Amino acid sequence: MHKSIKLVHNAAGRMVPTEVNGTAVIPYQGVGKYIPKGNKAAPPITSCAHFPADGNKIVGNLKTALEKAGLRNGMTISTHHHFRDGDLVANAVFDAAADLGVKELMWFPSASFPCHAPLIAHLESGVIHHIEGSMNGPLGEYCSRGKMRGLGVLRSHGGRYQAVQDGEVHIDIAVIAAPTADPFGNANGLTGPSACGLLGFALADSQFADKVIVVTDNLVDFPCVPWQIQGNYVDFVVQMDQIGEPQKIVSGTTEITKSPDRLLIAELTTRFVDEAGILKDGFSFQAGAGGTALAFAIFLKELMILRGVKARFIRGGSTKYLVEMLENGLTGYILDGQTFDLEGVRSMRENPGHVNTSPFTSYNYHGKGNFASMVDVVVLGATEVDLNFNANVVTHSDGKLLHGIGGWQNCLFSKCTILPIPSFRDRIPVIVDDVTTLVGPGELIDVIVTERGIAINPGRKDLINAVRHSSLPIRSLEDIKHEVEEICGGEPAKPVMNEEVVAVVKWVDGTVLDCIRKVD
Amino acid sequence: MHKSIKLVHNAAGRMVPTEVNGTAVIPYQGVGKYIPKGNKAAPPITSCAHFPADGNKIVGNLKTALEKAGLRNGMTISTHHHFRDGDLVANAVFDAAADLGVKELMWFPSASFPCHAPLIAHLESGVIHHIEGSMNGPLGEYCSRGKMRGLGVLRSHGGRYQAVQDGEVHIDIAVIAAPTADPFGNANGLTGPSACGLLGFALADSQFADKVIVVTDNLVDFPCVPWQIQGNYVDFVVQMDQIGEPQKIVSGTTEITKSPDRLLIAELTTRFVDEAGILKDGFSFQAGAGGTALAFAIFLKELMILRGVKARFIRGGSTKYLVEMLENGLTGYILDGQTFDLEGVRSMRENPGHVNTSPFTSYNYHGKGNFASMVDVVVLGATEVDLNFNANVVTHSDGKLLHGIGGWQNCLFSKCTILPIPSFRDRIPVIVDDVTTLVGPGELIDVIVTERGIAINPGRKDLINAVRHSSLPIRSLEDIKHEVEEICGGEPAKPVMNEEVVAVVKWVDGTVLDCIRKVD
Repeated sequence: MHKSIKLVHNAAGRMVPTEVNGTAVIPYQGVGKYIPKGNKAAPPITSCAHFPADGNKIVGNLKTALEKAGLRNGMTISTHHHFRDGDLVANAVFDAAADLGVKELMWFPSASFPCHAPLIAHLESGVIHHIEGSMNGPLGEYCSRGKMRGLGVLRSHGGRYQAVQDGEVHIDIAVIAAPTADPFGNANGLTGPSACGLLGFALADSQFADKVIVVTDNLVDFPCVPWQIQGNYVDFVVQMDQIGEPQKIVSGTTEITKSPDRLLIAELTTRFVDEAGILKDGFSFQAGAGGTALAFAIFLKELMILRGVKARFIRGGSTKYLVEMLENGLTGYILDGQTFDLEGVRSMRENPGHVNTSPFTSYNYHGKGNFASMVDVVVLGATEVDLNFNANVVTHSDGKLLHGIGGWQNCLFSKCTILPIPSFRDRIPVIVDDVTTLVGPGELIDVIVTERGIAINPGRKDLINAVRHSSLPIRSLEDIKHEVEEICGGEPAKPVMNEEVVAVVKWVDGTVLDCIRKVD
Repeated sequence: MHKSIKLVHNAAGRMVPTEVNGTAVIPYQGVGKYIPKGNKAAPPITSCAHFPADGNKIVGNLKTALEKAGLRNGMTISTHHHFRDGDLVANAVFDAAADLGVKELMWFPSASFPCHAPLIAHLESGVIHHIEGSMNGPLGEYCSRGKMRGLGVLRSHGGRYQAVQDGEVHIDIAVIAAPTADPFGNANGLTGPSACGLLGFALADSQFADKVIVVTDNLVDFPCVPWQIQGNYVDFVVQMDQIGEPQKIVSGTTEITKSPDRLLIAELTTRFVDEAGILKDGFSFQAGAGGTALAFAIFLKELMILRGVKARFIRGGSTKYLVEMLENGLTGYILDGQTFDLEGVRSMRENPGHVNTSPFTSYNYHGKGNFASMVDVVVLGATEVDLNFNANVVTHSDGKLLHGIGGWQNCLFSKCTILPIPSFRDRIPVIVDDVTTLVGPGELIDVIVTERGIAINPGRKDLINAVRHSSLPIRSLEDIKHEVEEICGGEPAKPVMNEEVVAVVKWVDGTVLDCIRKVD
């Protein structure tokens, strides 16, 4: 079925389909080139006459809620990854759908994890037709092997908001797992046994889905304050014994890398930020929760203390390290999209300066600006980069789909985007001629930091000039690539891939940036 | 022009037009009877490519912002009444529009006040065609006298959200005056020289208007936290020297009534709430900032202490009296739609239990429920009531339009709606055969408390039973009316009114409940 798809060249020179899962799509046209026409999605108008005056929207169980929400064949059901690999709700939703005899559903998760491997049975039986959303682990592998009937569609966090807002994806029923909720459907992620911090990935779904079901294991009396999800968007509330496995939702501690190479990369990144003049009073940064990014944050913190510099804001994914910076006055605010540890959850619950954000505020490219482009420097990972500074974050060099995009594409709009990456992994070079999958256009990637040197995008003459007289090991990407290939014994083997398309990668504006091929 | 309007009987037996300002309207069909079809308004999709990457949306002045927003003849411009009679922005907007030579604008304020009297000149010159929104004072008088070219349209706070959400009113340009804002357009009302507490009346406008301009006299660096208005909805930010007159925005103190009659009414109301069994642990109430309502709140507070009872939440309009209750643990939360004094502003700024709400969460009848119907008891005013418990809040017995509806209609959905009112004012009886203007259907009004006794709506047998054995002066409304007429020397004179319709009163669902006639 996938083989008959018509492919065209897009502006990045990639071959992409013009139709995905029965809907026409627009090939990528370049950064900022595609200007949307038309209007936002318009959900049905509801009336309070159809809702209980006392605000009690509780129904007996998930199955009843899905029935009352009008679940039927071919609908789109969304869930969210606030509990990461500890989610217990998505599987329960599709078990209930199977019980109800419903088929051909589209699952639209904000992300899926290994804990969702049981859903493969529902893909096999036809309860789920296909998945649009990031597929980490077994579901990615399943898709990679061409077993899913529809195409996978990978979107960034901002792209997911954009797709829902623009009506590209119509959600029939959103199921929002909430650590705390009241019978009206007001909900937050701050307290309860499954506390995860915030519920921002479900915002678009609450605003635009036809029907919204909140599922909680910690029901409180109205009002549930703060209401990160507003009950006025919610149709039904369901109680479950347990919606998430706490130990998998957040790790009690997040660890910095112990690898000497990665510590060196983190140190070089920190020095670059300093010597390029980015580290100054009132600056802002974003770094993830990976080992290298954490090491960068810690080195940066030490340097900030040394220089007497304070940040105006830090963008999270928050960890205990960022919380410490907030509490010690090294930043005015953490603008947080996701809490990665228990300290992050506590801080967001207690500290008004630890602000919960959403893909709408931070990442939606079809808004009136967003936060991502206002960040002075962002530090991100990548599986591959090529000589044009293009980067890949979803497939490995063997072509296998293993990761979601997350906020990665959205963050590229930062004033300075740095990828601190090892120059090779498992003796496979990370700098290649051409990335296996194009996820980030090179024009938005400014600096690549490896343990062998720092490459600055030739388009960023300002950055090149800024560090011209520094002692930093500035090199060309070609140079580093060449050195690495000598160590690894040549260029990496090209992955053996079928021509069959199994998934597409969307750009932040909803256009198709690249596609992912079947791996045998 | 108004005289040719076709009128029909609606379900309340009132004559109403079927067309208002060129648009077909639906006559009132009864409480909960009109079920909307169709979908919400869908604003144009925007792109970050058209907004500054650094988030700086500041333009030189209001005139430039209006030009950039594409202001032209016949557009709808909205402003808001967060500064009440101290607003300096609405007048500046229409002065700028006049400078630009633009005509025939529709002004869509959340409310207007005596400070907006200068806009009469713009109505006269044709810059403003007509006003849809409450008209307190001189503008109401102007409308009453039939001088406005279009019809006035009065909506409740919830009805205004509903009208915008449903696309009944399309706002071309919203101008949001904000006590604090950042260059991205994030804004709040908590700090700055014009602090007013919150900006909830502008929420719908920010979400649905084509263009949004934030005007501030207290610009802060990004991020302005909290963002009661989200910059992601904002097109332009304008700085002005002064956006409001602080002493008129909030009164430093709010005073309880000194009138012995009104104190008696407040006391009877409190006793009713107690003896009807409403006052119990975990209950909730709403009372306004008028003298009688404040006295009620204070008596209720004393009784709560005596009974050892705590409220789960109190709905504001907040005052220092409610803030004291929150701070003394007599309530878990204030769910606040409007801060009426400086203590309210301070408390909302400092106390996470003092929660800012909006017409969307509290009052929108075309949502999936709202807060108003979950409140155990609400205490409201009225200019007139009739024997069917119908009430009027916008006109006086002389027919003159002098007040807006505010949240009054929305609050009627409370589990127990009490109107504590004097039985006569200036020797004019308040209980009449037929209210001059129908604003609240009698079926939603449960109890009328006067200094001469308490009348319970015959439809509320539960309340009648609950106080059957109490010592409260329970009487029929007829009985009280009769006594009052003897004191005042008969029924009040019918107002002398022209047949000409000058304004309509909408119900919470957008249907037309009544119309207001020209007064000579």
